[in-house]
Amino acid sequence: MSKGLPKRSEDYSLWYNELVKRADLAENSAVRGCMVIKPYGYAIWEKMQATLDEMFKDTGHSNAYFPLFIPKSYLSKEADHVEGFAKECAVVTHYRLKNDENGNGVVVDPDAKLEEELIVRPTSETVIWNSYKNWIQSYRDLPLLINQWANVVRWEMRTRLFLRTAEFLWQEGHTAHATRQEAIDETVQMMNVYATFAEEYLALPVLKGVKTESERFAGAEDTYCIEALMQDGKALQAGTSHFLGQNFAKAFDVKFANKEGGAMEYVWGTSWGVSTRLMGALIMAHSDDNGLVLPPKLAPFQVVIVPIFRSEEQLAEISEVANKIKADLKKFGISVKYDDRDTHKPGWKFAEYELKGTPVRIAIGPKDLENGTVEVARRDLLEKNVMPMDDDFAQNISVLLDNIQDTIYQKALKYREEHSFKADSYDEFKKIISSEAGGFVYAHWDGTAETEEKIKNETKATIRCIPIDQVEEEGKCVYSGAPSKGRVVFAKAY
Amino acid sequence: MSKGLPKRSEDYSLWYNELVKRADLAENSAVRGCMVIKPYGYAIWEKMQATLDEMFKDTGHSNAYFPLFIPKSYLSKEADHVEGFAKECAVVTHYRLKNDENGNGVVVDPDAKLEEELIVRPTSETVIWNSYKNWIQSYRDLPLLINQWANVVRWEMRTRLFLRTAEFLWQEGHTAHATRQEAIDETVQMMNVYATFAEEYLALPVLKGVKTESERFAGAEDTYCIEALMQDGKALQAGTSHFLGQNFAKAFDVKFANKEGGAMEYVWGTSWGVSTRLMGALIMAHSDDNGLVLPPKLAPFQVVIVPIFRSEEQLAEISEVANKIKADLKKFGISVKYDDRDTHKPGWKFAEYELKGTPVRIAIGPKDLENGTVEVARRDLLEKNVMPMDDDFAQNISVLLDNIQDTIYQKALKYREEHSFKADSYDEFKKIISSEAGGFVYAHWDGTAETEEKIKNETKATIRCIPIDQVEEEGKCVYSGAPSKGRVVFAKAY
Ligand SMILES: [Zn+2]
Ligand SMILES: [Zn+2]
Repeated sequence: MSKGLPKRSEDYSLWYNELVKRADLAENSAVRGCMVIKPYGYAIWEKMQATLDEMFKDTGHSNAYFPLFIPKSYLSKEADHVEGFAKECAVVTHYRLKNDENGNGVVVDPDAKLEEELIVRPTSETVIWNSYKNWIQSYRDLPLLINQWANVVRWEMRTRLFLRTAEFLWQEGHTAHATRQEAIDETVQMMNVYATFAEEYLALPVLKGVKTESERFAGAEDTYCIEALMQDGKALQAGTSHFLGQNFAKAFDVKFANKEGGAMEYVWGTSWGVSTRLMGALIMAHSDDNGLVLPPKLAPFQVVIVPIFRSEEQLAEISEVANKIKADLKKFGISVKYDDRDTHKPGWKFAEYELKGTPVRIAIGPKDLENGTVEVARRDLLEKNVMPMDDDFAQNISVLLDNIQDTIYQKALKYREEHSFKADSYDEFKKIISSEAGGFVYAHWDGTAETEEKIKNETKATIRCIPIDQVEEEGKCVYSGAPSKGRVVFAKAY
Repeated sequence: MSKGLPKRSEDYSLWYNELVKRADLAENSAVRGCMVIKPYGYAIWEKMQATLDEMFKDTGHSNAYFPLFIPKSYLSKEADHVEGFAKECAVVTHYRLKNDENGNGVVVDPDAKLEEELIVRPTSETVIWNSYKNWIQSYRDLPLLINQWANVVRWEMRTRLFLRTAEFLWQEGHTAHATRQEAIDETVQMMNVYATFAEEYLALPVLKGVKTESERFAGAEDTYCIEALMQDGKALQAGTSHFLGQNFAKAFDVKFANKEGGAMEYVWGTSWGVSTRLMGALIMAHSDDNGLVLPPKLAPFQVVIVPIFRSEEQLAEISEVANKIKADLKKFGISVKYDDRDTHKPGWKFAEYELKGTPVRIAIGPKDLENGTVEVARRDLLEKNVMPMDDDFAQNISVLLDNIQDTIYQKALKYREEHSFKADSYDEFKKIISSEAGGFVYAHWDGTAETEEKIKNETKATIRCIPIDQVEEEGKCVYSGAPSKGRVVFAKAY
């Protein structure tokens, strides 16, 4: 129940952790860093998956599935990649257990040691490009536009539900192209797909931009990203799209005979992904001290109907109306749960659906039956209204849901605008970054990794991105005073 | 291309392997026993998933996600389970790699040894029941009806694409109930869901039955299954549903306060699953020496349109008609691919779609335009017809697809009926089982594991199931002569 949910203003981090657990979204498992995604949380993830999957298919991609295990030697084939990924990962060394001779359960069979260790994929570029070598011979085989929905593992010492877990679920797109420009276009297209998804479904405004060299994906020539601002003023990277150049093609020797005469050229690659981290973004961006606030487009059910009754007869009469409403709303594509359990009181149910972020709650009592009305409450603004049960009712609820989706987005946008600042001196920069409100800071930077690192060490702020709509503007780096031609975006980040 | 596809009659096993690869369904990866499911194969699997997922939800189940890794000690908690599953599995012993001091890529960091080894899940009963312990307190929390779509790993020495792979994709349902009867009803319900899916979508007739004790799932009180017959006369277990009794509840101490006074009782459990093995069943049951034969309900696209043209103008005229057909068919929910590539000739395309099992091929040439007709070919019977392009065309194609779905099913049913035999002596039994045609053999059995094992050792035949519609009939065990009250089904199996 929402009673006792910590307040955001008092302990944002504890509020988040408690909310994730109490709203039945996820919980920690007995395996360090691995989470259990509970049915209510998974239902939201399924809606994200279905929407993204359709967007990927609409842009010409197909799904496939590649192995969970990667031979250890593969990781070393692309020099930057191994630096970024070969470190904290789960290593399979044996393939058999046997009964302990002393009767203490099972032990690893030392005779079943693998010749080469296998790595549980932290990402699949290597194993996929190893397949692409056999799939691509000619320009006719290009572009190759493939996506995979999968679990990946990156050993993490400090984990947080959805935001950073050892195992997480994601999709990873891996495409191959005949030309540099086509690969760059694909990279940008997928960043835009992610941005559209974030804004239209998660109701989350995002900045689109390019990462600096030091924040780039290991093995990429350029990493494009979308960055969102959470309610504690910290940034969250919500999706990345990488232009891989010919790096993986060269590492795995993937060439194609070109159209003009059949000369062999290296293929150009991209990869792009979003993960269950989006669940963390969704929760942190919109929820309040009463619980989750879900955008209607991602809510497992958009409307809940709660009957208020004292007798079986009353419940029967209310149920007749409730079932009619449910059927009417269904015709408008609205998902409805009718909670007629007699094991819980209406007040308990109200708090429960508030905690779980159900966008619209309809309460029906005996007086409503007399008056031909119902009470309609919207979760985002916590407002109640009495609405007539007339012919326009379903249409009105449909409009209300659209309004809620938009209101949540506008609120997040307003928050971001109020927490976006320009800093023209390092003092000003530090003051904003160290303030409790946090936010995005637009500042000039001299373009060097040295300055970037010093700022990070001194303030914990990182460059979230060089915005793709960066305004050309002469300026001086807030740290070094060296010349700069445009502002980049700094923030503390998840 | 289908040219050179081995004949089933000459080498069924080679025919299968080659078909899987040439039809672009799957291939072996560099990791022993792990397959790559290619886009065309995965598109079929996605259709299976979508259909099953809806059937699971219609029967009240929700999806969730549990960790990939299982602490080694969990496997030992249920005595039978550890015997069945703790042997051939992938063991994670370390969580970090480091650069080799001699410059040879990366090596396992000996300092990063896990205190307790983690097992890559071969199935998830243990880790799920460990969660259920916290989720279930009272009868109000029951039934708990959860499904998971996941990858699992069982180390196998001899692997075959889709049929037996080290890593495979599956769904695993795990439910918890207040009473024994409710759990048994759930187990039977899910077997029936699988049977309905197999018959209506895979076009595959299946026997429903119960496994003998020696073929039972490790940790179950009863294993229900569906068994199908492949074209080489071998049986394939296509899905299993297990009644777990209170075994896992006791192993993980999962109790609930009952409705009558709140006394604490152990929960009753079930688990049930189907896997990418169904892909193997689909391929082996229906395909022929020309390639794949796909039931329309699972084909990635149901109709392909191939234009036959000599000039750009001809192609333009044909495309106008083709696109109209495509739009008309879409209105009937029919998925269509229009292959207007000029890089491949019509003959090549015909062979390609035959190999890939596209249920209906429509060819349109200049003469068809003059006559207002098209050529329609059905893959299952390899028959061609000229059809008028009139107002009923889309409707006629829709009827044709239904007819193909049914024809494929009836053919498989006829095959099974012709390969189902009764054996009343061990000589007769051995003669049928050792014959090239193979098939299901209905025979009396004395009910002992000893006899079952002797028959298996002598003939390679196993008891596929005790049919749920077993006819009561006095008889004598074909092996021991001991009395029996009904026939069980024997076969060689995958
Ligand atoms: Zn960015
Ligand atoms: Zn059976």
